[in-house]
Amino acid sequence: MNAADVDDDTRLLHHYIDKCSNWGRWGDDDQLGALNLVGPEEVRCAAGLVRKGKPISLTFPYDQRGPQPGGFRSNPQLFTTTTGLDHITGTQDPLPGGFGPARGFGFSDDVLLMPTQSGTQWDALSHIFWEGRMWNGRSARHVTTGGAAVNGIENYTGRIVMRGVLVDVPAHRRVDSLQPGEPITRDEVEDILGAHDLIVRPGDALLVRTGFMAARRGRWGDYAGGPSPGLSLHMAPWLHEQDIAAVATDTWGIEVRPNEIGYFQPLHIVSLVHSGIAFGEMFDLDVLAADCAEDGVYEFMFIASPLPVTGGSGAPVSALAIK
Amino acid sequence: MNAADVDDDTRLLHHYIDKCSNWGRWGDDDQLGALNLVGPEEVRCAAGLVRKGKPISLTFPYDQRGPQPGGFRSNPQLFTTTTGLDHITGTQDPLPGGFGPARGFGFSDDVLLMPTQSGTQWDALSHIFWEGRMWNGRSARHVTTGGAAVNGIENYTGRIVMRGVLVDVPAHRRVDSLQPGEPITRDEVEDILGAHDLIVRPGDALLVRTGFMAARRGRWGDYAGGPSPGLSLHMAPWLHEQDIAAVATDTWGIEVRPNEIGYFQPLHIVSLVHSGIAFGEMFDLDVLAADCAEDGVYEFMFIASPLPVTGGSGAPVSALAIK
Amino acid sequence: MNAADVDDDTRLLHHYIDKCSNWGRWGDDDQLGALNLVGPEEVRCAAGLVRKGKPISLTFPYDQRGPQPGGFRSNPQLFTTTTGLDHITGTQDPLPGGFGPARGFGFSDDVLLMPTQSGTQWDALSHIFWEGRMWNGRSARHVTTGGAAVNGIENYTGRIVMRGVLVDVPAHRRVDSLQPGEPITRDEVEDILGAHDLIVRPGDALLVRTGFMAARRGRWGDYAGGPSPGLSLHMAPWLHEQDIAAVATDTWGIEVRPNEIGYFQPLHIVSLVHSGIAFGEMFDLDVLAADCAEDGVYEFMFIASPLPVTGGSGAPVSALAIK
Amino acid sequence: MNAADVDDDTRLLHHYIDKCSNWGRWGDDDQLGALNLVGPEEVRCAAGLVRKGKPISLTFPYDQRGPQPGGFRSNPQLFTTTTGLDHITGTQDPLPGGFGPARGFGFSDDVLLMPTQSGTQWDALSHIFWEGRMWNGRSARHVTTGGAAVNGIENYTGRIVMRGVLVDVPAHRRVDSLQPGEPITRDEVEDILGAHDLIVRPGDALLVRTGFMAARRGRWGDYAGGPSPGLSLHMAPWLHEQDIAAVATDTWGIEVRPNEIGYFQPLHIVSLVHSGIAFGEMFDLDVLAADCAEDGVYEFMFIASPLPVTGGSGAPVSALAIK
Repeated sequence: MNAADVDDDTRLLHHYIDKCSNWGRWGDDDQLGALNLVGPEEVRCAAGLVRKGKPISLTFPYDQRGPQPGGFRSNPQLFTTTTGLDHITGTQDPLPGGFGPARGFGFSDDVLLMPTQSGTQWDALSHIFWEGRMWNGRSARHVTTGGAAVNGIENYTGRIVMRGVLVDVPAHRRVDSLQPGEPITRDEVEDILGAHDLIVRPGDALLVRTGFMAARRGRWGDYAGGPSPGLSLHMAPWLHEQDIAAVATDTWGIEVRPNEIGYFQPLHIVSLVHSGIAFGEMFDLDVLAADCAEDGVYEFMFIASPLPVTGGSGAPVSALAIK
Repeated sequence: MNAADVDDDTRLLHHYIDKCSNWGRWGDDDQLGALNLVGPEEVRCAAGLVRKGKPISLTFPYDQRGPQPGGFRSNPQLFTTTTGLDHITGTQDPLPGGFGPARGFGFSDDVLLMPTQSGTQWDALSHIFWEGRMWNGRSARHVTTGGAAVNGIENYTGRIVMRGVLVDVPAHRRVDSLQPGEPITRDEVEDILGAHDLIVRPGDALLVRTGFMAARRGRWGDYAGGPSPGLSLHMAPWLHEQDIAAVATDTWGIEVRPNEIGYFQPLHIVSLVHSGIAFGEMFDLDVLAADCAEDGVYEFMFIASPLPVTGGSGAPVSALAIK
Repeated sequence: MNAADVDDDTRLLHHYIDKCSNWGRWGDDDQLGALNLVGPEEVRCAAGLVRKGKPISLTFPYDQRGPQPGGFRSNPQLFTTTTGLDHITGTQDPLPGGFGPARGFGFSDDVLLMPTQSGTQWDALSHIFWEGRMWNGRSARHVTTGGAAVNGIENYTGRIVMRGVLVDVPAHRRVDSLQPGEPITRDEVEDILGAHDLIVRPGDALLVRTGFMAARRGRWGDYAGGPSPGLSLHMAPWLHEQDIAAVATDTWGIEVRPNEIGYFQPLHIVSLVHSGIAFGEMFDLDVLAADCAEDGVYEFMFIASPLPVTGGSGAPVSALAIK
Repeated sequence: MNAADVDDDTRLLHHYIDKCSNWGRWGDDDQLGALNLVGPEEVRCAAGLVRKGKPISLTFPYDQRGPQPGGFRSNPQLFTTTTGLDHITGTQDPLPGGFGPARGFGFSDDVLLMPTQSGTQWDALSHIFWEGRMWNGRSARHVTTGGAAVNGIENYTGRIVMRGVLVDVPAHRRVDSLQPGEPITRDEVEDILGAHDLIVRPGDALLVRTGFMAARRGRWGDYAGGPSPGLSLHMAPWLHEQDIAAVATDTWGIEVRPNEIGYFQPLHIVSLVHSGIAFGEMFDLDVLAADCAEDGVYEFMFIASPLPVTGGSGAPVSALAIK
């Protein structure tokens, strides 16, 4: 890119940052960000959306068949430390763990190894830095080999319970999946919401389906880390104005890739670092989308409390929509 | 113990197994067990218990300060693969993962290593074997180094949403904590429920607090794997009669230790393997108990969907009570 | 393959097994195999081959740039638990590990995660089974989730010090590398040895270079686990007759792939399981080959004692040729 | 300690640093330190010490029975990914790793997880920092979550082959083991060497036995990280004058603990960071000591090339004395 472009990109990014920043809004010590917008009324309201009594899982399996290419991030791996075969062949008596003879009793046990960002997960507010700082202006120096001393993912635990709204973009476009590089704009989101007579409310979780997980499931290719459909950077002001608390998509990185300006993941810079919105990635929205298409109801109780991994840059989550 | 005792123990155990077995009740292929008792009506009912709009986390932190002694099971460990220090000192440009120069952008990333049974967790129906078989009569041979081919923890994902009822035993006894070796009986549970005008219903989750986590928090000693208060084996028939779907306690192993008969973890053998009841361990019930004591309400929406760790003998969970 | 072929293959395999078996030769309890052939005289002789005083490493780096495709086996990964950045930014005072203020002192620390068979390594005699048995007729049931109770890699520690002889096949053929599927025969090995006026002696280590590591280094493709040049199955009787103690190659699996008969890795079945010969894989022989080509000396002191990983199916090793 | 003591300690430490520094001695780019003192003549000389033809392992087993307390550093753990039980029960056909039906063939496989400093190991020159710098004046900022970009342990691979000399202090004192807090001085080392008519030579490895591993083996207590016998700080000038290339002990940290002055591990600061001497820790010297006591020969070929763990702060090693 040439110098003039760089200048335009930089100006735009700074403009969005200025416009969308929530730093200080909930106090200088806040580590929760836009989840502050979810209070008792929002939780009660969410519970009121449970009509059919049907929980739908939004998390895809944590195992070796996931999308990660290995190297910097690999797929979840389960190491078994004792098995049913140990039991039936009598090699588990006495039991592992220091227990005595088992007399008919046996057990299996295992150890899970996974990058916190390898599958369905929330980014912590400590996951992304902009010029040395993270959410609420805290220095990136608080994130060391000991993990995040502030803004870690454990702050989200117990706090992600609210109304969720599904925006199914490929259904609206009548395609199976958006293509890599295709952005999703504010106008399109508003059109889709309008088509279902929905408006978003402060504290909502916005679940945006691109169809890209469905398109790549089991043949992942460069799904994780590669070109991808996703939210446009230019949605940042709208997300901020609407006081959206959380956004989740069925892609690896929420926003469209390649990025629309000469910065890496600029929507993360604006909306996660500065607006403090919770970002959920690789949510499996396909079963939910089918259910919504069937009953025409695109709002639900959304519960997606991440594991309290102390100091984590993110954490896996068993996310549910309950309709 | 002498031969006569062994015979009595064996007879009793087989009696309980015969009396409490649900094998085949939901079909020969069932991998869900007593969670079958939770249907749409139970989910709607649970949502109806959300009155204050207050989610309470029941999961304690996954980190090195947990109760595990190391060896067969150690505490969760977070390995950082890139940090805020890498970012602010300029060693993160270009970014890890194959991305180009960052221009102000930085990030942290990490990898989680944890035994699935090291903290707050559900046992899978593949976790416990009795004489070569697990829930629904399936052979233990299905649990190999590749994990559980049947009855794995992923079957529970999306299914643990129901009414929860807290039974706070130390509050009823007016002690801080039950002591290791002290059993909790059916009569005491019924007394406590009665004192709050509660009855349990089919498909409920029963959360039983012993106070033992509060007593040991941060000075764990042999909390994990050692002597412990817990449910009496003799509660098994009552759990079965009441069609309880799930039981969770604030101890490492649900049942009282040392065990009451000459078998290892006999309540697991009867109620998990044969009744198919979901067993939740090391749930942190202290904040919930304080809230219940304050408002006098001991029932709530209980949401505790474990991570879908394919083939896992268990999985960590961000468990919530929502009042 | 048709039934007649199967019969021929089976007959041939059994013929080689009968001919080459050393089971019982060093006692029923032996866990060392052909390394029994290395005694004090062989060690002294090896030391006598140190003429230039030049150690040459035969191990390639253990890191993420290795040949493993991920999944069942991934490349070695180093997790840093504290770094120089922690030190210089003052976040390491007090020190990790429970130590007090450091006053100028700092340190780095890390954790290594690696499949034992991911890089330069020895197979243990517990690594390969044939019809339920491993070296010396021991049952495969001794290898459980607790590791190998017999025949583990720790038996090799301290025992692999002997004369090494390099057989540089591509140099002899005047090619850069043998191609996948190309076998190396006894006649060719004898020709190459003869060209250097060498004979092999009981207790020797035979290092056979195919050039395939050089051809694939850094562009590994399916180097690990894929088609490969390597030793012909039909070398098994010669290896046994010559009382070779150890064989190592610059390929992932010693023998030619695809295999020459309708059995998986038949040379492992004959020479490792039955002759008890130590198998070394992914040895980096390129620098050694260049040195041998320069001075014309193809024998040397060979020292390749694996890490004593208790019960390991193999272990990494810092292997040296000293000339 | 009071201010005057601090001043004395600081002065002494700086005096030793000034006196013992080898920074720049082998060029500004050097990453090898005192191992530069080992050249072809030293390697040949070492081989000449092989008289009996007897290799003796100096590495203790890498497994869960090691001395680490868990937490920051835990003991080596082996995760089996497929076992002999999988083979004999038929669950390994087809084979893991993508291979087809096995027809009688089976195998075991495993993954090793270990802190690089958890057992017998060499410290890398990147392991210790002093006021922001490491060996040869390089900034600690080169050691990031990506590992050590300079001075990593891979520099030692292939270079630790030299004459070794055993100094058996408890044998000389006629005790089983030195006690925690007892320092070993230059005079005592010279006495012991003199008693065996030995002098050290430039490039030698000095193996100093305290007996503390023998005293704690299997009942480790605070062996790793706790009070310990070890070398006195005041040996630093002698080590430097004698041009010792490497020092190894049977303790976790080479030097006496608690430290003799108000700095943490001051001998590391002087002799590792500034003299560039290779530090080997938790070497098992008991079998070697018994052999030396028997034949009266305290010098030998010493071979202890660490695994080339790229960027490692240290690495495990299968160390040998060959007599």
